[in-house]
Amino acid sequence: MGGDYAPENTVAGALEALRETRNRFSVILVGREDAINEVLRKHRTNGEVHSVVNASEVITFDDVPTAALKTKKQSSIVIGMTLHKEGKVDAFVSAGNTGAVLSASTLILGRIEGVRRPTIGAFLPSERGVCILLDAGANVDCRPQHLLEFAIMGSIYARQILRYEKPTVGLLNVGEEASKGGAQLQETFQLLSRSRLNFIGNVEGSDILRGKAQVVVCDGLVGNVVLKFGESVIGMLRERLIESAREGLLKKLRARFAYGALRTIMKDFDYQEYGGVPVLGVQGVCIIGHGVSTAKAVRNMILRAEEMVVQNINGQIRSALRPAA
Amino acid sequence: MGGDYAPENTVAGALEALRETRNRFSVILVGREDAINEVLRKHRTNGEVHSVVNASEVITFDDVPTAALKTKKQSSIVIGMTLHKEGKVDAFVSAGNTGAVLSASTLILGRIEGVRRPTIGAFLPSERGVCILLDAGANVDCRPQHLLEFAIMGSIYARQILRYEKPTVGLLNVGEEASKGGAQLQETFQLLSRSRLNFIGNVEGSDILRGKAQVVVCDGLVGNVVLKFGESVIGMLRERLIESAREGLLKKLRARFAYGALRTIMKDFDYQEYGGVPVLGVQGVCIIGHGVSTAKAVRNMILRAEEMVVQNINGQIRSALRPAA
Repeated sequence: MGGDYAPENTVAGALEALRETRNRFSVILVGREDAINEVLRKHRTNGEVHSVVNASEVITFDDVPTAALKTKKQSSIVIGMTLHKEGKVDAFVSAGNTGAVLSASTLILGRIEGVRRPTIGAFLPSERGVCILLDAGANVDCRPQHLLEFAIMGSIYARQILRYEKPTVGLLNVGEEASKGGAQLQETFQLLSRSRLNFIGNVEGSDILRGKAQVVVCDGLVGNVVLKFGESVIGMLRERLIESAREGLLKKLRARFAYGALRTIMKDFDYQEYGGVPVLGVQGVCIIGHGVSTAKAVRNMILRAEEMVVQNINGQIRSALRPAA
Repeated sequence: MGGDYAPENTVAGALEALRETRNRFSVILVGREDAINEVLRKHRTNGEVHSVVNASEVITFDDVPTAALKTKKQSSIVIGMTLHKEGKVDAFVSAGNTGAVLSASTLILGRIEGVRRPTIGAFLPSERGVCILLDAGANVDCRPQHLLEFAIMGSIYARQILRYEKPTVGLLNVGEEASKGGAQLQETFQLLSRSRLNFIGNVEGSDILRGKAQVVVCDGLVGNVVLKFGESVIGMLRERLIESAREGLLKKLRARFAYGALRTIMKDFDYQEYGGVPVLGVQGVCIIGHGVSTAKAVRNMILRAEEMVVQNINGQIRSALRPAA
């Protein structure tokens, strides 16, 4: 039921993933049974292996995450995450209230031993391929040890899923030198330098899109602001082109050309390609989608979740962060 | 001597400002006398009121700011700032090493009484006009009291220079609610709420370009990363259009059209329009320009500096932040 276009897009994306992979896995659709069945009827399903589990309540985008988890026990987020906890599914994906999915993943699934703070990783395009930025907003006020954990989990994801052999790790800072930033960042720099990660040093805001690092590590405040700001730059350009097109035929033509060129470029900024953002550090596989997720985005979320299961991301996080005996 | 195109652009911008204002003020050009005079000769000056003060050393972009100020006493930054300190000029502008100019302004001019941390404000376009974001990178690890000071100084600048009657102030955070962010941000929210400022609450990364607040307050780490990232988004789009133009005649045509449309839009993102970023909270008027400053950017820096003097920004900061007797 999560997302602005649920259950339509959620169901459509799930069916697409099943068709394409020829039922390499099966999908349980969690939500209001009647609404889901209505969408399923429209789709004329053809052998896709799916089932429906009823969830009578819906957590909306206006709900306060932790409170909603307590008062709406019959929501698709709580029921779906519990199915995962009980081992009935291998992964849970949702395009619903980000805070609620995140809280549910931590509260219901629990953290992997050795992980102090589960994190959300977001994807950004760069001149040298996609990079993962974490934390994308789950944790503000991070201590150096937390940032080190993000770097470790991000590196595992970058290696196993993004297929970078020895992913480069950069610490987001105001300058390159080790002495830049406050005491927290300086200490993080030292921790990362002493780690086994492929740490390339500090990176600046302008280095992200240049692809200087494949794993960009930062506090959730910085990460969240950068991501939302980046989305809005693209959005603003798009809006202005549309406005400009209204100002006359020549400008309309020009804007249409510009839009065509921009579309190719913006494809890299398109959240749909990545599907959603993974929660790393919890005892399970969980991906959170954009509120406006299309069927394609849902499809990609499901395929990514499958890959995270197959690649045993959590097994690797567990060994990497296992507390010394 | 500051900037990649000095003294050419610096001299050209200064002459332009003088011509346009019909010598409403005079300009002292500080730098290598022979180099400056050579550029002046090329320009065939015509009554512009300017003089030259020799500075034999140059602080480059590779120099470590505070160290360079000590070892290069004969640099244009140290000599120019000292002229300001001695009251021989009313303002100092430079497109040189940002860190060095900033340090020089604090060390040579000193802080205004009541200001704990001088700050740099940067300008961003928005749907409702330009907004000022501070801190843009001068201070990392800010405490709530520092952020409150930034808000006060930014509001004074927004009112006097940007001409907003009762400038709206927003605190950059991961969400709108007062409970968002860590302890520091929550405390800042309370301080701002109790102040006399026109505080509208938390703003998110996506709210900046929408113009939700005319003064956006944040830690220097967040501010610096957002600004550099934003610049790089625009830069990346530009580069890709150029690349795309190389792929054939049709694409070239399309890219040329697109570029025309984009140029209008990107004008708002053009640092030249704003000239440079003001240092607020020091006992003087100081503006720092972009390393690649054009003559137009230098001209705008000078005009903005004049306005800050005329509007007596510092007098207002002094009264607003005067410690209670």
